Amino acid sequence: MRQKMSDMVHKIQDEICEKLIEIDGVKYRQDEWTRQEGGGGRSRVFSGGKVFEKAGVNVSVVHGTLSSEAASSMSGGRNLEGTDLDFFATGISLVLHPHNPMAPTVHANYRYFERGDGKKKGSWWFGGGADLTPSYLFDDDVKHFHEVYKNICDKHDIADYRNFKKWCDDYFFVKHRGERRGVGGIFFDDINDLSKEECFSFVKDCAKSFLVSYIPILERRKDMSYTSKQKEWQQIRRGRYVEFNLVYDRGTTFGLNTNGRIESILMSLPLTARWEYCHEVDSNSDEYKLIKVLQEPRNWLEL
Amino acid sequence: MRQKMSDMVHKIQDEICEKLIEIDGVKYRQDEWTRQEGGGGRSRVFSGGKVFEKAGVNVSVVHGTLSSEAASSMSGGRNLEGTDLDFFATGISLVLHPHNPMAPTVHANYRYFERGDGKKKGSWWFGGGADLTPSYLFDDDVKHFHEVYKNICDKHDIADYRNFKKWCDDYFFVKHRGERRGVGGIFFDDINDLSKEECFSFVKDCAKSFLVSYIPILERRKDMSYTSKQKEWQQIRRGRYVEFNLVYDRGTTFGLNTNGRIESILMSLPLTARWEYCHEVDSNSDEYKLIKVLQEPRNWLEL
Repeated sequence: MRQKMSDMVHKIQDEICEKLIEIDGVKYRQDEWTRQEGGGGRSRVFSGGKVFEKAGVNVSVVHGTLSSEAASSMSGGRNLEGTDLDFFATGISLVLHPHNPMAPTVHANYRYFERGDGKKKGSWWFGGGADLTPSYLFDDDVKHFHEVYKNICDKHDIADYRNFKKWCDDYFFVKHRGERRGVGGIFFDDINDLSKEECFSFVKDCAKSFLVSYIPILERRKDMSYTSKQKEWQQIRRGRYVEFNLVYDRGTTFGLNTNGRIESILMSLPLTARWEYCHEVDSNSDEYKLIKVLQEPRNWLEL
Repeated sequence: MRQKMSDMVHKIQDEICEKLIEIDGVKYRQDEWTRQEGGGGRSRVFSGGKVFEKAGVNVSVVHGTLSSEAASSMSGGRNLEGTDLDFFATGISLVLHPHNPMAPTVHANYRYFERGDGKKKGSWWFGGGADLTPSYLFDDDVKHFHEVYKNICDKHDIADYRNFKKWCDDYFFVKHRGERRGVGGIFFDDINDLSKEECFSFVKDCAKSFLVSYIPILERRKDMSYTSKQKEWQQIRRGRYVEFNLVYDRGTTFGLNTNGRIESILMSLPLTARWEYCHEVDSNSDEYKLIKVLQEPRNWLEL
């Protein structure tokens, strides 16, 4: 499974990057890196293109020994002895921040994790998900995004859209703001109920559907006209994105604790962000419409 | 001491804000706020003025019951029983971010803390410090800043510049970057070795000297000419400032954990910041000169 998952994420990285080159009109910068403690990765970052302010698609295959800090920041493997601190992890992680404030930021991440030899119950698991972070709300975009992932969940016994949708809303909660980072999607962690093969099959379907879930949205928003006030609102939302990633995100925490490659971990941060003291929006504005849905997540699909 | 410290920080807030109005040409926005669990504060934030991109000077007087999370994020009070979770805290906190990339950001914070009735050994303490965060290094500025605080330390038995300078370099370490946030100053926490009066007298001297430590530096830098590339470098340094505050700063953590007023806690964040993937600087540039000193702090004064 180590090899199978690693092959899959590398292939998906190629597919996604090929499409992004076509859209953005520039090539990515690629960095292949190794990690002193074991393993490495391949980071690809787009910048200076016509569509994306910054966009990164990373894969990594790492192994080593967890610090007890890192181990306790994970929810998986809680049943294991302290002696099972050896780990193997491989996955793909991407974050795309478009220039146009009408086009949402998107994030997706799929990973396979083993502790010890990965044979014992609870010593291997998959995790991942995909979520959308708009600055302006277009119901059709959100419905489309959720629909793609619901259809995949419906095809796999291991997956439950209703549960994974709620998990996403809960995970991306910025507690100190009382709002979610975005309009969600799906999120799951520590899945290992059925066989490795069944979990892999679900995760692979999700990863392969990334382009279908996002590109149609991007296509209809990337060339919309916008005002400087709307651009400023996007920058304020970018600030909230930074707050979530640096304060709450477990992937970021895990990376910082395991001496990961900093530039690859923090490529998720937007190119620019803004913090205005006590920024407020009118209660009948488009900005307010977004905030409301971040405070009270909606069910986007009829279930 | 509760009243005495609270009076002092309010008076200093007035003095500092009066001077900032004179320099910035605008008045602050003031928010008086109360905290549901007890106490409140007075936040004053400058924006839109000619010198500061964003500048905040806050005082607060809060009390309540610590969560065990918040208690364990503090180094003070470790000797106390779990039953001493009642707390009282008052202090002043300021962060000034000038527009001009040649003018450094500055931060200062002085606080008095009690747990339980504040009578037992180890149940009260003072903390604080002041530190400078330039985007471009001017040795004279850093020397002046350190000198002001060294002179104060020398006058008080409770204080030791050499120790407090090192404490500052250690505290403002951004571990994942291998560099300090800035060029330091002094930092101290949990001081309670001598009497409350002696500690207070030191802290009061520090707070009263803030303007003397910073304004002469600001005066000589605020109108210097600069290029757009230098402005961009400042924005990247602002990004590092955000990283420190959201990932490591204990004051921020404490505020988020104790349900503090979010806008007052996060007023320390700059108005704008930037994250460029793998940003690099020439090894004979002014930008590199700064980075070197953030990686290897210098002794600015002959001791």
